[in-house]
Amino acid sequence: MKSSFVRDVLERLRRGEISVEEALEELRDFPFLDLEHTKLDTLRELRKGIPEIIYGEGKSLEELLEILRPLRARGEDVLVTRVRREIGEVLKTDLKEGVYDSIARCFYLKEDFSIKGKGTVLVVSAGTSDRSVAEEAYVTSVFLGNQTERLYDVGIAGIHRLTAHKDLLKKARVIICVAGMEGALPSIIAGVVSVPVLGVPTSCGYGASFSGLAALLTMLNSCSTLAVFNIDNGFGAAYFATLINRL
Amino acid sequence: MKSSFVRDVLERLRRGEISVEEALEELRDFPFLDLEHTKLDTLRELRKGIPEIIYGEGKSLEELLEILRPLRARGEDVLVTRVRREIGEVLKTDLKEGVYDSIARCFYLKEDFSIKGKGTVLVVSAGTSDRSVAEEAYVTSVFLGNQTERLYDVGIAGIHRLTAHKDLLKKARVIICVAGMEGALPSIIAGVVSVPVLGVPTSCGYGASFSGLAALLTMLNSCSTLAVFNIDNGFGAAYFATLINRL
Amino acid sequence: MKSSFVRDVLERLRRGEISVEEALEELRDFPFLDLEHTKLDTLRELRKGIPEIIYGEGKSLEELLEILRPLRARGEDVLVTRVRREIGEVLKTDLKEGVYDSIARCFYLKEDFSIKGKGTVLVVSAGTSDRSVAEEAYVTSVFLGNQTERLYDVGIAGIHRLTAHKDLLKKARVIICVAGMEGALPSIIAGVVSVPVLGVPTSCGYGASFSGLAALLTMLNSCSTLAVFNIDNGFGAAYFATLINRL
Amino acid sequence: MKSSFVRDVLERLRRGEISVEEALEELRDFPFLDLEHTKLDTLRELRKGIPEIIYGEGKSLEELLEILRPLRARGEDVLVTRVRREIGEVLKTDLKEGVYDSIARCFYLKEDFSIKGKGTVLVVSAGTSDRSVAEEAYVTSVFLGNQTERLYDVGIAGIHRLTAHKDLLKKARVIICVAGMEGALPSIIAGVVSVPVLGVPTSCGYGASFSGLAALLTMLNSCSTLAVFNIDNGFGAAYFATLINRL
Amino acid sequence: MKSSFVRDVLERLRRGEISVEEALEELRDFPFLDLEHTKLDTLRELRKGIPEIIYGEGKSLEELLEILRPLRARGEDVLVTRVRREIGEVLKTDLKEGVYDSIARCFYLKEDFSIKGKGTVLVVSAGTSDRSVAEEAYVTSVFLGNQTERLYDVGIAGIHRLTAHKDLLKKARVIICVAGMEGALPSIIAGVVSVPVLGVPTSCGYGASFSGLAALLTMLNSCSTLAVFNIDNGFGAAYFATLINRL
Amino acid sequence: MKSSFVRDVLERLRRGEISVEEALEELRDFPFLDLEHTKLDTLRELRKGIPEIIYGEGKSLEELLEILRPLRARGEDVLVTRVRREIGEVLKTDLKEGVYDSIARCFYLKEDFSIKGKGTVLVVSAGTSDRSVAEEAYVTSVFLGNQTERLYDVGIAGIHRLTAHKDLLKKARVIICVAGMEGALPSIIAGVVSVPVLGVPTSCGYGASFSGLAALLTMLNSCSTLAVFNIDNGFGAAYFATLINRL
Amino acid sequence: MKSSFVRDVLERLRRGEISVEEALEELRDFPFLDLEHTKLDTLRELRKGIPEIIYGEGKSLEELLEILRPLRARGEDVLVTRVRREIGEVLKTDLKEGVYDSIARCFYLKEDFSIKGKGTVLVVSAGTSDRSVAEEAYVTSVFLGNQTERLYDVGIAGIHRLTAHKDLLKKARVIICVAGMEGALPSIIAGVVSVPVLGVPTSCGYGASFSGLAALLTMLNSCSTLAVFNIDNGFGAAYFATLINRL
Amino acid sequence: MKSSFVRDVLERLRRGEISVEEALEELRDFPFLDLEHTKLDTLRELRKGIPEIIYGEGKSLEELLEILRPLRARGEDVLVTRVRREIGEVLKTDLKEGVYDSIARCFYLKEDFSIKGKGTVLVVSAGTSDRSVAEEAYVTSVFLGNQTERLYDVGIAGIHRLTAHKDLLKKARVIICVAGMEGALPSIIAGVVSVPVLGVPTSCGYGASFSGLAALLTMLNSCSTLAVFNIDNGFGAAYFATLINRL
Repeated sequence: MKSSFVRDVLERLRRGEISVEEALEELRDFPFLDLEHTKLDTLRELRKGIPEIIYGEGKSLEELLEILRPLRARGEDVLVTRVRREIGEVLKTDLKEGVYDSIARCFYLKEDFSIKGKGTVLVVSAGTSDRSVAEEAYVTSVFLGNQTERLYDVGIAGIHRLTAHKDLLKKARVIICVAGMEGALPSIIAGVVSVPVLGVPTSCGYGASFSGLAALLTMLNSCSTLAVFNIDNGFGAAYFATLINRL
Repeated sequence: MKSSFVRDVLERLRRGEISVEEALEELRDFPFLDLEHTKLDTLRELRKGIPEIIYGEGKSLEELLEILRPLRARGEDVLVTRVRREIGEVLKTDLKEGVYDSIARCFYLKEDFSIKGKGTVLVVSAGTSDRSVAEEAYVTSVFLGNQTERLYDVGIAGIHRLTAHKDLLKKARVIICVAGMEGALPSIIAGVVSVPVLGVPTSCGYGASFSGLAALLTMLNSCSTLAVFNIDNGFGAAYFATLINRL
Repeated sequence: MKSSFVRDVLERLRRGEISVEEALEELRDFPFLDLEHTKLDTLRELRKGIPEIIYGEGKSLEELLEILRPLRARGEDVLVTRVRREIGEVLKTDLKEGVYDSIARCFYLKEDFSIKGKGTVLVVSAGTSDRSVAEEAYVTSVFLGNQTERLYDVGIAGIHRLTAHKDLLKKARVIICVAGMEGALPSIIAGVVSVPVLGVPTSCGYGASFSGLAALLTMLNSCSTLAVFNIDNGFGAAYFATLINRL
Repeated sequence: MKSSFVRDVLERLRRGEISVEEALEELRDFPFLDLEHTKLDTLRELRKGIPEIIYGEGKSLEELLEILRPLRARGEDVLVTRVRREIGEVLKTDLKEGVYDSIARCFYLKEDFSIKGKGTVLVVSAGTSDRSVAEEAYVTSVFLGNQTERLYDVGIAGIHRLTAHKDLLKKARVIICVAGMEGALPSIIAGVVSVPVLGVPTSCGYGASFSGLAALLTMLNSCSTLAVFNIDNGFGAAYFATLINRL
Repeated sequence: MKSSFVRDVLERLRRGEISVEEALEELRDFPFLDLEHTKLDTLRELRKGIPEIIYGEGKSLEELLEILRPLRARGEDVLVTRVRREIGEVLKTDLKEGVYDSIARCFYLKEDFSIKGKGTVLVVSAGTSDRSVAEEAYVTSVFLGNQTERLYDVGIAGIHRLTAHKDLLKKARVIICVAGMEGALPSIIAGVVSVPVLGVPTSCGYGASFSGLAALLTMLNSCSTLAVFNIDNGFGAAYFATLINRL
Repeated sequence: MKSSFVRDVLERLRRGEISVEEALEELRDFPFLDLEHTKLDTLRELRKGIPEIIYGEGKSLEELLEILRPLRARGEDVLVTRVRREIGEVLKTDLKEGVYDSIARCFYLKEDFSIKGKGTVLVVSAGTSDRSVAEEAYVTSVFLGNQTERLYDVGIAGIHRLTAHKDLLKKARVIICVAGMEGALPSIIAGVVSVPVLGVPTSCGYGASFSGLAALLTMLNSCSTLAVFNIDNGFGAAYFATLINRL
Repeated sequence: MKSSFVRDVLERLRRGEISVEEALEELRDFPFLDLEHTKLDTLRELRKGIPEIIYGEGKSLEELLEILRPLRARGEDVLVTRVRREIGEVLKTDLKEGVYDSIARCFYLKEDFSIKGKGTVLVVSAGTSDRSVAEEAYVTSVFLGNQTERLYDVGIAGIHRLTAHKDLLKKARVIICVAGMEGALPSIIAGVVSVPVLGVPTSCGYGASFSGLAALLTMLNSCSTLAVFNIDNGFGAAYFATLINRL
Repeated sequence: MKSSFVRDVLERLRRGEISVEEALEELRDFPFLDLEHTKLDTLRELRKGIPEIIYGEGKSLEELLEILRPLRARGEDVLVTRVRREIGEVLKTDLKEGVYDSIARCFYLKEDFSIKGKGTVLVVSAGTSDRSVAEEAYVTSVFLGNQTERLYDVGIAGIHRLTAHKDLLKKARVIICVAGMEGALPSIIAGVVSVPVLGVPTSCGYGASFSGLAALLTMLNSCSTLAVFNIDNGFGAAYFATLINRL
């Protein structure tokens, strides 16, 4: 079965099953799904080569279902991030082929499990408390078709542990490094590898961590150049890693 | 002539001109150049595949010459960023094969002009005032062996201009987008291309731009995912683009 | 019935139904309604031509009823913003001709539906999460007698969508644009229209959005000049749009 | 002579002096003036009905002359803001029909003095130190074709002075109010008039004024709704006042 | 009965009822009440002429009772600020002569109602939402023996209301002015009176009020000089007003 | 000769030398001195009982002379604060009866040296670097007719020094305490006296003093209640001390 | 029984009970306990001489038990900080030899009560509200083998109390001083002792204490040099005091 | 010869050369040197065992000479920090036995070179730009009688370099680690040693380093506990290291 409605239309056109006019007709209905509150942009896949992703924060169960049902009906893959457990449980009941990951707080419908990235994306995290953000990155990276590995709990106070996992670091084509509090781990990793390292500060910490600001500033000022993402934005880093990994 | 001393040692070893012991001996002297104030890490090239780059801010002319002369003597390529005009002019006089770019505020010695990146790096800037940072990115990208193009003065108030340069955008393998004030241009570009976009906020602006903070926050919160770098860090973005472009 | 007590007094005077002395007598009682905790300024309408609006945040049900009942008794239109659902539901029960909008969090009593603004106010929002603030602006704008239209979910990642709604943009005399996260949409709209654009940053977002600070700074630094309002202040923008629209 | 090249082309077309093809040909050269560093967008006038305005901060004398000479050659009106005295004096010598205002720090070429706004724009300032920003607003407003009046030095400590100038306040169709330090004056004025008030915080003050932040926050939190602009952005407020005044 | 144990000891000494040695003995036990967690400084009254005041935030019911019971046993007046309703209700039951004011969030035991200040303290508040802080100031001022008056809900948008209460303003020897959001009211009052005005910013507001920061900065930058207190510190202003009023 | 024109007019009226009509005539000219850029409010003295004070920051020599000459001509006392040395020296030459204090950066014309405050104002400073702000407070306090004393260089690291000056502390009716860096001295003083203490944070310090922010926050959070003024606002504290000292 | 597994292995080796190979074998299993989510670094004790400490914030009961059970099984001492009461109560039930301190929010297993520090660590706190942080420091200091004393509730408003406890201050080899709000106490103590003073700001306070920022800045700017720790980091200060006390 | 006047008085007393009364007499003159602007606390040495140190920032040449001359006359050691080169050169000419270090920006008079600390203080710096702050720490540590070593230019991007200097790290009793930009080096060092590490953030860096704020926050949030000092406070760290090293 096909993962994407738009691709399906285009391939039917290529196989001669529909005319250009018919293709245009089918596509013309899609730029905006005129739900009351959300206009899905199904043409985005064409432009970016990446399936639909929904930011779930602040959306009600009803709103999410209204968005997800037509996507499932057309057989499209979709990922919803920032889904609270109460909502995730219900989505899983309603859309049975869906998966809800309560640590990553992600819900997804996925049928196409082919690997599309060229190499491995490695997700590294500094401490136990950063796990939720790291998992959001991991789930997103897998969803977007990357071979993905994890290396968790590699805090700066135990840098020597990195040596025990040199092979994982060497194997990676892109590294996502998630860290809260002081946020220095991505710098250290970028100092010993020669592939792009994406730093994700987390809001873990207290006091002068100022909800992730300390880690964010650390990464922005890193001497061993990092690409920095918003605090807790595991999704964004995985999305960006995918863009790199498909090059 | 060769661009790197370390590579030279290794190749002589491979060609049988020196023994392993002799190679080790030559390399052993290099991890730290025991100048009074600066220990150059010549092994870094081995680890990262990238020639020496010096952060010139706050370094005196004497310190820079002390660093640059032995590098030139060994025929190594080297880039110095953040070099004020007074110092740059003198460096150019002293090290005649060197180039000083007063807009990018960069000085470099370069003999190896081979292209090492796989595609084109495109440097886009939003306004005239961002040119210095954009040029730092451009000079660095060229220095690091990338095919590099420029597209300047594409402010958000004139987004339609982007259409006039669609081909440049499509041709790029990585895009560096430099913007001050509101800093929204990288978001817009990332919304219409499918390659990685690196956002560099600049300190251009006044009042509530808070020396680049506004542009930095805009990029970190972008809906169309960007990799963000420190304010005015044109060098960092070009370095990172190089890591991607060599994948 | 008339929408305003003060206007009513003045018109009765003009028609000769009361003497100047009687008018003064009726008005003299009104400058301050001597409730224990709130002194309503009924003369404000005279000065500003705009009916009573109450900021509901932090006011108890009892306080609101104490304010609303005399206003209703005199047949005046009144809008209460920032009304939590629990309170809104009770107000609707107690004051049956009132309307409570749970998304906009507004309660209002309105009898005069005449259009007083000269053109159309258009409320644009960037994302689903901004809807509550956008609705506050919409409800306020309608309440204040403007012909008002909505265009929601026009995120910066999908700027091309604007073209699908060019007619709405062209028809507007004033545009209110509500956006959280990076907050760049108002800039883009102001770059393509020639009417005043009012930017309302929202507290939507996470991490480095710092509860709307990022969007606020983006709008203040916009190259395509915007009028900026407080974070989440949908009401303020609609009020200001009304002042413009009555010119 | 006419103030705008583009309008001129279009009118010649209307009068039958050139063909559509010729008009297109003439216009095709204009979207981007391919100077090395600045691409002027001459089509902007068409979209916004407002002549060219250049942000002079950080631009060298050479860059400004390179931009201004072709505009003058085509007889277009142009305003350059944020021009330091040293540069302004030279510009005035080089472009003799130009005017340099050293308090407003503005240089302009203007031939079309017709009034295009419907009413009066009033510029109010709180203290002597705010004069430069107020004058930037005044010069811009006059340049853009508004009947413009000034009322300076009306600090909050002397609110009663407002009464002495009631007529000026009543006559205005839009009011720009410039204030540093505590920044409360715009609130007070907006509390007594019924036309739109645009608040411009200035960087005047010391200590906890934090270079205008205090005044900016005061205006954003005003109870008597204001439209707020960036710190020291007298130009922006005048530009926005013009959009309102042309409605 | 007397309000203060220390004063009582001293007066018995003056009346010859006890010897100096006995007085010293009685006082020696008092500098530190050796409760496990709180050492009350009963000598403070001697130094400052002001009865005991307890900051109730974060203290448990048990801790408060342990502090209050011995004070009551010795007949001392005591005020506890920042007492949540749940705790206040129980305190009132346990210490029957005590009063709990749920708006001011204060609990107090008071037997000495003599007026000790020379003039009237006036508490002014800008809006309904500032009432809790204003009441804390009012209750504290009364507790500390000042003739105290209130003037509430005098927002900046309705400055003309001040004229209706000129007599109250003129009668005051010290004015405490409580205001959130923009926080401009104290400036305006200080501009029209010639007695000291104490400004108390409140955390009322939203968005860019940043929990009272905006009002705090406004007051610190006021042109008509104010004494400024911490955000929501109604108690501190009343305490300070008392020091002035006793001069 | 008398220090104030307005008082003079009123006294001539009282003595029967002029009629009410003539007095009104003379006063009518005064509310606003219609200089191009500054409107002095000579009625302010009537309202506040305090002579004219000019904030000199950012005013040119010409502007200051234009303000000062008519004041001198009418024999009024005047104080100008924040006067740079270059300007101060010239003022002293031009207006020979004036005094310029280069540490306090104040210029003043004063003929009336009568003491108007009831007690002594004491100015305390924490360190050598705070001297300029402390002197501004001292000069202002003397100018406004207070008996004024100084106690400088009483840093928190040498608190025991306070004991050596107990008599000065006890003698004061109001204390102004100036401190930079950590800013804790005012708290300590307020803990041992029973008169009002006015805290003035200074911008002295480096690093995390953030130009006085640290000292400002310390004072706002003081447990021994302080009245706080803007950073470096020695003038404001002395003005406020005067209001208290005249009660 | 022994407190540490690693030490036990090493001592068995020294006593000839195991061979080097066997020791290596036993140790080889330990660098990483391969739990799904946490890799304990048991070699850390070897490097730092300090038993295992777990940061409990954000860890679930299950995760904590998974970490604690093997540690207990090997007879190792362990301290868990930031344990909420609900979790602490269950841990105490499950691991009976453990202690849960609800004020310090710490849980620990400890069998080795020998004193390892050379002198006394004194924990001083400024106010009742700082007790939780002070107790975290106290419990940690005792756990790490220091003779530890407490001196609580010594606020800056009652500095004279310090004299009553001079002996405690003189006896200490290291002093930890915990203070919120203005945070000036550590400065004052460091001004009168000659041993290292460690300052711990707390988040106690309201308004402009900005959750401990004020106290943090006060300590960083202290004239009487302090070592500063993160807001509320009682544990860190006690850990650091231990490093000093073992010298 | 004697290093300190106070110690000299006390020793003459011990040797019977003066009576207690004479000693008291000599000391009584010293608590405050009644210079116009600075009161030196010569008793401080008694309390803290550390010679006089003067903070030179903002002090004029005249003021410094007025302070230094009597200290030299009494043969006391003295260190002046933050001395600009212009002033330092003159001091060296005037006080010939003095030393001026232009990198550390320190001037000192020192005759007693005995070592008073028990072990070695090691000063580590991350980059060339941090050298001035590191040298201030080094000069201060030597001045205060510590055996002191340096290890400069050990950036986080070259962590492996630390291994080349293991012996220096192991030999130290206290380590001062100076770092700007991301500021992560102190964390890493504290992760591999078991002695106290004092972190000094520097203002080196640009953009989001916010003049040292980034490095400060990194250190405060470090997982491997650090004692943190003010930005650029090399002196403070060396002073604190001395307190530890004398234990």
